[in-house]
Amino acid sequence: MFERTPFAGKPNPQLRKAAAAIFTAAVRAVDPAAAVRRMLVRRGHRLRLDTRWYDLRQSRRILVVGAGKAAAPMAAAVEQVLGKRITDGLVIVKYGHVGPLRRIRLVEAGHPLPDTAGERGAAQMLELLRSASEDDLVVCLVSGGGSALLPAPVPGLSLQEKIAVTDLLLRSGATIQEVNVVRKHLSQVKGGRLAQAAAPARLLVLVLSDVVGDPLDAIASGPASPDPTTFADALAVVRRYQMEERLPASALAYLRRGASGHVAETPKPGDPLFHRVQVVVVGNNTRALAAAANRAKGLGFRVLVLTPFLQGEAREVARVFASVARSIRAVRTPLIPPACLLAGGETTVTVHGPGRGGRCQEFALAAAAEIAGWPETVVAGFGTDGTDGPTDAAGALVDGETTARATSLGLDLDRALADNDSHAVFRDLGDLLVTGPTKTNVNDVYLALVGQTAPAREETRVTRRSKHALRMTRG
Amino acid sequence: MFERTPFAGKPNPQLRKAAAAIFTAAVRAVDPAAAVRRMLVRRGHRLRLDTRWYDLRQSRRILVVGAGKAAAPMAAAVEQVLGKRITDGLVIVKYGHVGPLRRIRLVEAGHPLPDTAGERGAAQMLELLRSASEDDLVVCLVSGGGSALLPAPVPGLSLQEKIAVTDLLLRSGATIQEVNVVRKHLSQVKGGRLAQAAAPARLLVLVLSDVVGDPLDAIASGPASPDPTTFADALAVVRRYQMEERLPASALAYLRRGASGHVAETPKPGDPLFHRVQVVVVGNNTRALAAAANRAKGLGFRVLVLTPFLQGEAREVARVFASVARSIRAVRTPLIPPACLLAGGETTVTVHGPGRGGRCQEFALAAAAEIAGWPETVVAGFGTDGTDGPTDAAGALVDGETTARATSLGLDLDRALADNDSHAVFRDLGDLLVTGPTKTNVNDVYLALVGQTAPAREETRVTRRSKHALRMTRG
Repeated sequence: MFERTPFAGKPNPQLRKAAAAIFTAAVRAVDPAAAVRRMLVRRGHRLRLDTRWYDLRQSRRILVVGAGKAAAPMAAAVEQVLGKRITDGLVIVKYGHVGPLRRIRLVEAGHPLPDTAGERGAAQMLELLRSASEDDLVVCLVSGGGSALLPAPVPGLSLQEKIAVTDLLLRSGATIQEVNVVRKHLSQVKGGRLAQAAAPARLLVLVLSDVVGDPLDAIASGPASPDPTTFADALAVVRRYQMEERLPASALAYLRRGASGHVAETPKPGDPLFHRVQVVVVGNNTRALAAAANRAKGLGFRVLVLTPFLQGEAREVARVFASVARSIRAVRTPLIPPACLLAGGETTVTVHGPGRGGRCQEFALAAAAEIAGWPETVVAGFGTDGTDGPTDAAGALVDGETTARATSLGLDLDRALADNDSHAVFRDLGDLLVTGPTKTNVNDVYLALVGQTAPAREETRVTRRSKHALRMTRG
Repeated sequence: MFERTPFAGKPNPQLRKAAAAIFTAAVRAVDPAAAVRRMLVRRGHRLRLDTRWYDLRQSRRILVVGAGKAAAPMAAAVEQVLGKRITDGLVIVKYGHVGPLRRIRLVEAGHPLPDTAGERGAAQMLELLRSASEDDLVVCLVSGGGSALLPAPVPGLSLQEKIAVTDLLLRSGATIQEVNVVRKHLSQVKGGRLAQAAAPARLLVLVLSDVVGDPLDAIASGPASPDPTTFADALAVVRRYQMEERLPASALAYLRRGASGHVAETPKPGDPLFHRVQVVVVGNNTRALAAAANRAKGLGFRVLVLTPFLQGEAREVARVFASVARSIRAVRTPLIPPACLLAGGETTVTVHGPGRGGRCQEFALAAAAEIAGWPETVVAGFGTDGTDGPTDAAGALVDGETTARATSLGLDLDRALADNDSHAVFRDLGDLLVTGPTKTNVNDVYLALVGQTAPAREETRVTRRSKHALRMTRG
């Protein structure tokens, strides 16, 4: 998996190899095609999705639709399972995220900024779905990026106007949840509208989750999920940020028509429509963590999985990780070495400096100062999509000797952290984790490995470490 | 223990009661007098410290010295154990931190800024120690604040000059470790100098640790511990921050005399002096956590102790705690509810606003936004000294209904967090944890409790939560 292995000729080669192996297991477990094939299984005329069985003889047509960065490999897997039984299909992917498909049409479109290619693709998809009858089976493939790739503004609203609505709200301080309430009520796809379009056909939805916690109404804006929010809620958000004057008139007019009952609401929880919908998360962070934990156990580590919902400022989360690693070393709590601490999720980086990096690289950079001098300790972070921030690395790995090696190479890690400039120093250290795009995305995996060493009595070091040390020991 | 209990008439009364009970157990386990009596036991003419026994008949005189915020109760406990066998003694405490002593003299002095009372006390103590012979037994009691309470500048350096050295170095960007290297070489007490003064007497040192990780050479500046640093190291620190011109001339001259061999070094690791020294940590964060864990288990919780070395920005550590609590609720990892997550240590607060609060209260405030709406979830932080920041509270407690209650009371928690103004809102919510000064200090204890609820399928809420939500769900 790893194109450049971060252990050749470095300290702690065993721990470095183990970290690479654990990350590889995590990514493989959420490979989009493998994830689909694990959950969608055909036995002759019987089709199983997760635990439910369907009789394919009852389906006149089988349509496959989808959108997202992983749509191509997911669609290819569906073709492997259903083959010639597929009547028609259309999936929309990010430019370049293509794959060989035989029966399902592939449309490339803009991401993260929606474009007219996506708009045309979405229109074709809606046309196909609206043609579906009660006898038809629709398979819908949802993955990260699906929202931008499937732009379908309501009649009367242009794509540019819809983009402007999102933009204006975000810049006025609305949360992403609030923005989504508005967006769902200005879309023909989001907030369960896609499921509405596919009704009365049977709808099987396979989701590769790129949102922490797998909120189905948030992943790709929940095209096949009930929407608990209303037109009135959407108007309330607009009012809360005093956007009535600044929003495109067409958008405001549409929301007002909806709130006064002249447009049908998005489908709500409990809508009978969803009786014919099965939604399954085929891959998520929890699954990646479970695979990572298994691999680590196989390598002889005691394992603690903290959470698949990790959040927090990357450099501060690194300090928490280091404090747990220190505890493992010094007091054999919560694990006795050799030990592996795992967490998944998505940290954040508040940008202060002009540098280049990503969440995982910044996490690793901050950890380096904390674990400086510790034997048999490795800390690493890794984006399962293979792309950490605007870099070609998936993440980075550090150990107790990283700061010393950096110093001997003339690299200033404190400075790099202050400038959010993690990428260059890890490139120079040779400690980037590089996989290339993995075509999957279930957020990040973070780990700390502590090898088997005598529990050392810790003494305060006199070497110059991070400035954090000052804060740590103040009374 | 808790003067005002934070559960009367509130949601989650059972969990609130449990949190208070767990914190109480933690503080009781590190009560200074109890901690001394647990470790220092007399059986007739035999005295045991931890696992080592001493024959009191071999001791001509028994002297008791000490300094620190907990010195009075520690000395009282020693009087209970050794009674009339104590020949003489002197302990230095912070103004007002007094207690009834019969045979050991009590000196009150300035903290955190040293004063002449402390200087006079230190001189008397050194005189007493230098009078000790090989047949004498010296008991030394060390606790937090001992460094400021025991100021003994080297000959030729005034107390004001010594304070100026510390001040100048800290303001020039030196870490606390670097400052300590210099301080230890300008003191007659720090860096093992007190043990040097007591030699050749037998020296028993009882330490109540207020420094994360119990570095013996750092607690009260390590008066009875080997000092691995040298005069040359101290001069290197001075040079590193270009302080040669600005430091008091007497200080610089002394360091140079030391570096050129004209002053004896501080005692180094391996010095035979320490063969007659036994140092025991009688109370620390690890012990407090163990007692907390035990109490939680007794209350029926599954318990995970993460680390006694917790560090990081308080509000970000709160997000990590919340992410683990969410994992416990949603995927029953790393614990199955009812569950108790514990960590000890010391978080930090980077002050942005004009408000009043402390580490633990800010931790709780940040957690409130993260756990908003979660049933059966409590998060709390608590300073074992009973004083969180410049407030009269030990900490604060929040649950899933705290934000809603705050809103109904017209309190703006987001604003309070932005302004570092945690104390006022918790006072108004009635959710402060108040104990009064506990006369002990082993840093903070942080916990999350998750009660027994059905693992709820999480949906994205539409209510306005913290701005963090925006960052959490961005692709």
